[in-house]
Amino acid sequence: MASEKGVMLLDFWVSPFGQRARIALAEKGVEYEYKEENLRDKSELLLKSNPIHKKIPVLIHDGKPICESLIIVQYIDETWSDKAPLLPSDPYQRAQARFWADFVDKKVFECGGKLWKLKGEEQEAAKTEMIEILQILEAQLGDKKYFGGDIFGFVDVAFVPFTSWFYSYETCANFSVEEVAPKIVKWAKRCMERESVEKTLPDPKKVYEFVRYLKKRFGIE
Amino acid sequence: MASEKGVMLLDFWVSPFGQRARIALAEKGVEYEYKEENLRDKSELLLKSNPIHKKIPVLIHDGKPICESLIIVQYIDETWSDKAPLLPSDPYQRAQARFWADFVDKKVFECGGKLWKLKGEEQEAAKTEMIEILQILEAQLGDKKYFGGDIFGFVDVAFVPFTSWFYSYETCANFSVEEVAPKIVKWAKRCMERESVEKTLPDPKKVYEFVRYLKKRFGIE
Repeated sequence: MASEKGVMLLDFWVSPFGQRARIALAEKGVEYEYKEENLRDKSELLLKSNPIHKKIPVLIHDGKPICESLIIVQYIDETWSDKAPLLPSDPYQRAQARFWADFVDKKVFECGGKLWKLKGEEQEAAKTEMIEILQILEAQLGDKKYFGGDIFGFVDVAFVPFTSWFYSYETCANFSVEEVAPKIVKWAKRCMERESVEKTLPDPKKVYEFVRYLKKRFGIE
Repeated sequence: MASEKGVMLLDFWVSPFGQRARIALAEKGVEYEYKEENLRDKSELLLKSNPIHKKIPVLIHDGKPICESLIIVQYIDETWSDKAPLLPSDPYQRAQARFWADFVDKKVFECGGKLWKLKGEEQEAAKTEMIEILQILEAQLGDKKYFGGDIFGFVDVAFVPFTSWFYSYETCANFSVEEVAPKIVKWAKRCMERESVEKTLPDPKKVYEFVRYLKKRFGIE
């Protein structure tokens, strides 16, 4: 394969997990080959590189695969450590960054899925939950520029891809992120001023089109 | 509080997650104050230290709380870095260690719970799943002494607490771990030769008594 000695990313355009890897690579200025996967007909390379979970993203560096998005971002941070540190150097601050990235992992994606998959009372419950999640993140951000302070870092990389899903969450569940978490919306705009984020995140309207396609595919209308 | 400037662990004796923190602290030779929590009447200190998840374990170091067991183990490794390194220094090896610890996190505990909570066909399905999980871990261990090679490390710390639950899994779901994953059983014995593990893990029969208490409490007989 072409990138035997290079860097390759197996990914899918709308995946917030894949976007984490793309943002981290862009922050570090790493050139890489991007391979879009068809998730309904996964490539041999993907199945061979991630036999356990069979999921994107997979980063392949010098022929060796690294799986799971937050593990990939840490690998990128440790491998290209001379530029744009994503995790702070202090162990306590690192633990905090890992805690909040893990919080995003455990809460946002699953609850976001419920917003477009469910209806009626169940959807209302998911909306209440999402508002709570956003308010917890809003309080954690506070008046800081980024989650870790003045420097764009690990938690920002973990969370910012979900902001391009906000429009879909809002449209499906009928609420306004700006009303419940105005600081998060301003932070998202600040992140979008970075080339790494701006070039990676898809148009929220395109994400919504994708959500509508999923709804149709799963028979949810 | 007594340990304002020291190390304190809020924990619960039978928790595999808390045991990870205890094993890591023992490997590093860190002295600490152990506080057993009553999970049906959590202490003010626990609720204040982990307001988001309200779960043990919480490590409090110099008055600052660190939550989530794998994050705690990494914090311990980075803070007391002069002794018994748990994560390897090579970024790819670190990514591999994180991957397998995460695999244990995502698979073993939840599936283990199903083994004692469910009955009939559902329990059979959980048993099939657990056997698959154990065989994946068996293959990953292979003929190595520990998961990372010759040195007791991150994946061992993450997984070994679950071995004191094996007896409960076997008794509830009627199967033998030794038959499906003999290398894992030998590895568990090897780990038990370490003081850090031997002093931390409870008697499997006591774990089973606890499982029986839980079954009674939840009306599963």
